[in-house]
Amino acid sequence: MTEPVKELNFEVVYETEGRSVGKLRNEISISWVGANEGPWEMATDEGTFHGGEDTAPPPIAYWAAGFTGCIMTQIRAFSKRMRIPINDVTVKARFAWEGHQIERNPYVTSPKGFGFDIDIDSEAPTEDIVRLVEAAKKGCFIDQTMAVANTVDHRLKIDGEWIDV
Amino acid sequence: MTEPVKELNFEVVYETEGRSVGKLRNEISISWVGANEGPWEMATDEGTFHGGEDTAPPPIAYWAAGFTGCIMTQIRAFSKRMRIPINDVTVKARFAWEGHQIERNPYVTSPKGFGFDIDIDSEAPTEDIVRLVEAAKKGCFIDQTMAVANTVDHRLKIDGEWIDV
Repeated sequence: MTEPVKELNFEVVYETEGRSVGKLRNEISISWVGANEGPWEMATDEGTFHGGEDTAPPPIAYWAAGFTGCIMTQIRAFSKRMRIPINDVTVKARFAWEGHQIERNPYVTSPKGFGFDIDIDSEAPTEDIVRLVEAAKKGCFIDQTMAVANTVDHRLKIDGEWIDV
Repeated sequence: MTEPVKELNFEVVYETEGRSVGKLRNEISISWVGANEGPWEMATDEGTFHGGEDTAPPPIAYWAAGFTGCIMTQIRAFSKRMRIPINDVTVKARFAWEGHQIERNPYVTSPKGFGFDIDIDSEAPTEDIVRLVEAAKKGCFIDQTMAVANTVDHRLKIDGEWIDV
């Protein structure tokens, strides 16, 4: 008799709550719902050139840190699970967008390119390290999200009612 | 004689550099290249339940803060540009993923749903507020990135040479 294959589905849900303060500063609480982790408090701002007061890093800096940290964490977490021993991990990443503006209209942006250079200190065979990075990509919540077109819902509160925008 | 329409294309590039420390902690420097802004230093970790040491928020918390801050910033920045006066902005957002795991294999993740509830305190007509949020979505670097399938390059350093993974 063989044991049945154990399959597990799980959900990861984060919620944020942001409040505007000052000129362009946002104060944001972040919670990992269900795991009862957080709330963590983070603030974003823009430099004075962009109309902010430079009291905190800009939003994209947080986003880029999260994306970089995600792939790095999965590499180390999965190295244990896959029994591929590694030492240090160093990652350099580049995130590029372009913007298009006509006259003084609000600009329109689009993604241009994203790339990670991953350096793993390990005695393991190359094929194991490649297998580890492949698994880390598939397990990285953010990497997997970037790879597909996502629907992001936006609801706007108008006179106490929520409307879709 | 009419003036020619002024069109402007610009690029926004961020670079990160992450180093692994401790069990699952990452220390990350983030720079806005070209704008000479940063570097900002941010650290990620995981809770002890997930094999970390709980010294910093997890990567997804930063990512979620960045996404939330991005749309909030564009709403306020564009309200000036579009001459639609607003007061406070409050945003609640929800980000959900699911994971699938077979036995003790590394799990595979996929995005499940993302949504923003936006509350803008303003005397402006509803149509102007809707127009403002529509413009903010198109100008938000992260919103625009989520809407399309992106190629994320991963290069791995093996014996001093970079290979694509």
